[in-house]
Amino acid sequence: REQVYRALGRIAEEGFGMLGLPGELGGENDIPASILVFETLGFGDMSVLVKFGVQFGLFGGSILQLGTEHHHRTWLASVGRLELPGCYAMTEVDHGSNVRDLETEAHWDPEVEGFRIRTPHPGARKDWIGNAALHGRMATVFARLVVEGEDHGVHAFLVPIRDEEGRTMAGVEIEDCGAKVGLHGVDNGRLAFRDVTIPRGHLLDRFGQVTKDGRYESSISSPGRRFFTMLETLVTGRISIAAASVSAAKTGLAIAIRYSADRRQFGPSGKPEMPILGYLSQQRLLLPRLAATYGLHFAVRQLVERMGARSSHEDDPGIETLAAGLKVLASRNAQETLQACREACGGRGYLAENRLGTLRDDTDVFTTFEGANVVLLQLVARSLLSEYRDQMGELDLRGIIRLVSERAGAEVQRRNPIRSRRTGEEHLRDPETHREAFRFREQRLLSSVARRLKHRIDGEMDSFEALNECQDHVVSLGRAHMEAEVLDAFLAGAADAPDEDVRLVLESLAALWALERLEADRAWFLEAGWMEPPQSRALRGLVNRLCGELADQAVPLVDAFGIPDSVLRAPAAFGSGRPGRTREAGPGNGG
Amino acid sequence: REQVYRALGRIAEEGFGMLGLPGELGGENDIPASILVFETLGFGDMSVLVKFGVQFGLFGGSILQLGTEHHHRTWLASVGRLELPGCYAMTEVDHGSNVRDLETEAHWDPEVEGFRIRTPHPGARKDWIGNAALHGRMATVFARLVVEGEDHGVHAFLVPIRDEEGRTMAGVEIEDCGAKVGLHGVDNGRLAFRDVTIPRGHLLDRFGQVTKDGRYESSISSPGRRFFTMLETLVTGRISIAAASVSAAKTGLAIAIRYSADRRQFGPSGKPEMPILGYLSQQRLLLPRLAATYGLHFAVRQLVERMGARSSHEDDPGIETLAAGLKVLASRNAQETLQACREACGGRGYLAENRLGTLRDDTDVFTTFEGANVVLLQLVARSLLSEYRDQMGELDLRGIIRLVSERAGAEVQRRNPIRSRRTGEEHLRDPETHREAFRFREQRLLSSVARRLKHRIDGEMDSFEALNECQDHVVSLGRAHMEAEVLDAFLAGAADAPDEDVRLVLESLAALWALERLEADRAWFLEAGWMEPPQSRALRGLVNRLCGELADQAVPLVDAFGIPDSVLRAPAAFGSGRPGRTREAGPGNGG
Repeated sequence: REQVYRALGRIAEEGFGMLGLPGELGGENDIPASILVFETLGFGDMSVLVKFGVQFGLFGGSILQLGTEHHHRTWLASVGRLELPGCYAMTEVDHGSNVRDLETEAHWDPEVEGFRIRTPHPGARKDWIGNAALHGRMATVFARLVVEGEDHGVHAFLVPIRDEEGRTMAGVEIEDCGAKVGLHGVDNGRLAFRDVTIPRGHLLDRFGQVTKDGRYESSISSPGRRFFTMLETLVTGRISIAAASVSAAKTGLAIAIRYSADRRQFGPSGKPEMPILGYLSQQRLLLPRLAATYGLHFAVRQLVERMGARSSHEDDPGIETLAAGLKVLASRNAQETLQACREACGGRGYLAENRLGTLRDDTDVFTTFEGANVVLLQLVARSLLSEYRDQMGELDLRGIIRLVSERAGAEVQRRNPIRSRRTGEEHLRDPETHREAFRFREQRLLSSVARRLKHRIDGEMDSFEALNECQDHVVSLGRAHMEAEVLDAFLAGAADAPDEDVRLVLESLAALWALERLEADRAWFLEAGWMEPPQSRALRGLVNRLCGELADQAVPLVDAFGIPDSVLRAPAAFGSGRPGRTREAGPGNGG
Repeated sequence: REQVYRALGRIAEEGFGMLGLPGELGGENDIPASILVFETLGFGDMSVLVKFGVQFGLFGGSILQLGTEHHHRTWLASVGRLELPGCYAMTEVDHGSNVRDLETEAHWDPEVEGFRIRTPHPGARKDWIGNAALHGRMATVFARLVVEGEDHGVHAFLVPIRDEEGRTMAGVEIEDCGAKVGLHGVDNGRLAFRDVTIPRGHLLDRFGQVTKDGRYESSISSPGRRFFTMLETLVTGRISIAAASVSAAKTGLAIAIRYSADRRQFGPSGKPEMPILGYLSQQRLLLPRLAATYGLHFAVRQLVERMGARSSHEDDPGIETLAAGLKVLASRNAQETLQACREACGGRGYLAENRLGTLRDDTDVFTTFEGANVVLLQLVARSLLSEYRDQMGELDLRGIIRLVSERAGAEVQRRNPIRSRRTGEEHLRDPETHREAFRFREQRLLSSVARRLKHRIDGEMDSFEALNECQDHVVSLGRAHMEAEVLDAFLAGAADAPDEDVRLVLESLAALWALERLEADRAWFLEAGWMEPPQSRALRGLVNRLCGELADQAVPLVDAFGIPDSVLRAPAAFGSGRPGRTREAGPGNGG
C-alpha cells in the first residue's frame, strides 16, 4: 500500500492529477486526457490505477462537478497535487446498488450554521471506501440532508476524516475492510460518523443549497431527478473503468497470443509439433476476444472524444447510458478474456510471473463497482424505454411504455427479414448485414419488452414487480443495444485506419466479432425468423474460417497495442526459454 | 507450505493415506474411500487437498498400478504413512498435453545393471511437479526407455531426489516453480537429471520389463497401447479432481445462496427491500449452477461406486472415458460457479474472508492439470468414435470412422423428432423428453463428425489435420456425451431419494439443469429440426419458472451439502451483521 501510494505521488508530481482541472486552478480542463492516463495505467499495476481513480476521478471529480466556485478554489488544486488525499464515500454496508436509499444523515444545525453527519446504525456505515483505511484525509460523504426534520434526499458533503498527521478526527470511526481477492495495494475502509460537525460551506451545493438561515433551495425540484443528476459524477468513472478494462484485456491477449504462437504441442505424424495457435480450439478461445477487445477499444475512444466535445454537463445526455453500458461490456470482456488467456497458457498461465491471475483478480471487481453490471444493463434498457431521461428519474414507466410499444412495433414491421436469409459468404461478411441484424434485434427486443411490461402494468401489477418478471428480457435489451453501439464504433474505427492493409484487417476483425456475436445469439435470430437453419450453420463455418484467417495476423494485432516489453513483463510472452528456438527470453524468465 | 505439510502429516497419522493400499500392506484396498476423503478435503484448504492427491493418489498410485509385488512391498506402506514423501514426474517444460512425446531418457546400462536417467535439454525438464520443490524424497519419473539404442517408449522409474536429511541427490537439479495464481501451499518444482543411475528394480515394470541381461519384454506389443495403459493411473486422479471440483462448487454455492437469501436491495415502492435471491437475474445466475452441481455430485458418486465394483484394472474400461469427461465438466462448473458466486455476492464476494476468490484461484488450474479440458473432451469423443479402445491407442481413425458413420446414420433415422415438438409444460418437464433430446444430440453429432472426418480422410487428408478442422465439432460431441451421462446419473440419484419430498425437489432440480442445458444449446436443436421456435421460447419461459420455484428451496438445498459452519467459515454465509435482522454472525464477521 505504501509502495502504491508512493507511485501515486510520482504520478501527481508529473502533473497528471491536474489534467482535468480548470485552467484558472493550474489545470488543463481536459478530462479526456485524464481518462487516457487512466487507460495507460491499466497496462500496469491495477492498485495504482484504482488509487489514481479514487483520488483524482472520484474525490476530485465530485468537488469539481458537485461543488461550486468556493469549493473549487479552496480544495481542487491540493487534491490534484495529492496534498489533500481523499475519498468518495457513497456505498454503505446495506446499500451498494440501491444508493438512493442510503441512510447516512446530515442534519442542519442552526446553532453552528453547519451540519451534523451521523451514521444511524452499523448497516449505514460507508463501506469499500478507497483511500479510507490509510491515506485519506477528507471524504466526499453522501448523506440524506435533513433540515428541520424534512428529508431533502441525498447530497454530498466534504468531511475531514484525518488531520495532517494522519490521526483520525474526533467522531469518525475507521475500519480496514481487510484482505481482498485482488487490488492489494488499495486501502479500502469503512467509515462511521458520530455527530461530526462540518461548516455550511462543506455542502457541495451545485444542485442544492442551504441558506444561512436554514432554508433549502434547489434548481431541480424533483428529489429523484436531483439525485440522478448528482450521480453523473460516476459517468467519468465508468468510462475510465471501461478504458482500464480494455487495457487489461489487451495485456492478457498480448501474453496469451504471443505464447500460443510460440508454444508447440502435437502435430501430424513425422512432422514437427504445431504451434497451438494453429488449433481451431485455441483460435476460438482467443481470436473472438481479440476482436471484441478491438471493438471496445474503438467504442471507448469514441466516447472519450464525444465527452471532450460536449460543451457542458447537461449537453449530450446519451453519454451517460453509453458510459454505463460500455463499463458493463468492457469489464465482462476483461474478466472472460483474462480467464481464457490463463487457460490458453495452460500451466504457464498459472505462474504468478505471467500476470494473468493477478490481472484477473484485480479487475474482477470491475464487474461490481461503479455500478453492478446487471443493474447498469437495466439502466441502459430503461433509457431506451424512454427518450426522456428526466421522466426516467421518477421511474414512472406507464406512459413511456405505451408510447414505445407503439413506435417500436412499427419500426420492426418496416424491416424485411427475408432479404437477410441469404447464406452466401459475401452477404454474411457484409458489415451492413451485421448492422441490420444488430439493430433488428435491438428494436425487436425493445418492442417485445415494452409489450410485456404494458401487459403487466395494464393488469395493475406494480411496476417494480413487472420489471423483475421481465428482467432477463430487459437485460438482453440493454446488451443488444450496447453491442449495436460497439459495432458502429468498430466499423467507424476500421474506416479511419491509416492505410488500406490495416483497414482490411480491422474489417475482418470487426466481421469476426459481429459474426461471433450473432452466432452466440443465433437461437434468438432463429426464433425471431431473422434467419433459417442453413444461414445459422453457414455463420458457424464462417466464424471458424475467419478465426483461421486472422490467426496469422494475431501477433501483429497484439503488438499493435504498443505495450512496451518492460511493461508487458510476463515471461510467457517472450518465448519458451528453449535456446535457439524462439526470440530472447524476457526479464525474469525462469521457464 | 510447512503448515500444509503438517496438515498432511496429521491426515496420514489418521490412516487416510493407507485406505487405497492392499490389505497385506496394512491398507483397506478401498480406492473409493480414498476418493471420498479427497472429496471431503475439497471443502477445506485446496493446497492440503492437492498435496494429499500427489502423495497418496499419484505417487502412491503409480507404484501400486505400474509396479509389481517387489515395489509394493518395498515402498507402498511408507508412502501411505508419509514416511517417504514423493512426486509424480510426468509433465515436461515442452510437453504438457502431448506426454507421449516427452523427452527425458532412461538408458539401460549393462555395466551397473541399472538405468541412467537424463534430461537431454532444458525443454525436457520435469515441470510443475508437486512435492518437488521442498518435501519430496523420491519421484516416479516418466522417461523413454532406451535399450541398446532402441527406444521402447515411455516407462515409469522410481528416482530418489533427496536423501533423508532433505539434501538434493547428486545429479539431480531442483528448481522451485515460484509463486502461482493459487495453491500457495503446494511446492511445485522442476526437475532435471544429469545421468542419475538407479538400479534395475526401480523400473515400475508391470507393463514392460528389462531382464538382467538387458532384454526388453512386454505383454503389450504396441508401444502406443502400452503407454495409454500406463496413463490409466490418471483415472483415479481425474475422478478425484472431479469430486473436489464438486466440493468447491458446493462451498461457493452455500456461501452465495445463503448470502442472497439474506441480502436485501431495492423493492416495490413503500415496501421493505427485497432479498436479492428474489430477482430473476440472481436466480438465473445461481440456480442452474446449483442444479449442475447436484447433477455432477450424483455422476461422480456413481462413477466412484462403479470403480469400487470392478474386479480388476482391465475390467470396465468405460470408466476411463467417464473419468476424463467428468473431470472436464466438474472443473469447468467449479470455475464458472465460483466466479458467478463471487459476483452474486457483489463487494462482499471480493473480501478474502469470504473465500470465493481463493477457492476460484486454487481450483482454476483444475481445468488444466491431469489433462487439459479441451484435450480430454477430444479423448471422450474419440472413444465414442471407436468401440475398440485398443485401436484408438493407435490413433488410426480411418476404419473406425467408416464403421461408425454407417451405424450412427441408421440410429438417427430411427428417431422421430416430430414427437418432440410439443410445447406443453408437462411434455417439456418430462425427464424422458430430456433424455431423448440429449441422446438425439449425441447420436446426431457422432454421425455428422464421422461423416465430416470420413470425407476428409477419403480425400487423402492427414488424420491429424482432419481432426483439427473438425475440432469444435469433436469437442461438442464429447460434451454432449458427458451431459447425457450426467443426466442419467442425476435422474438415478433423484429416484434413489430417501423420501418423496426430497425426490420431488431433486426431480425439479434435474429438470432445471436439463432444460437450461437444452436452452443453452437451443440453436443447435433448432438447426437440427429437433424443435421449432415456439418450443424454444417455451423452454426459456419454463427455465425462468423453475428458477422461481426452486429459489425457495435453495437454502435447504445448500444446507443439505452438510458442510459444517466451522468449515464453511465465510462471514457472508452467516448474515449481514446488522443486529436483530438476521441470524447470528459467524466467526470473524466484520461485515
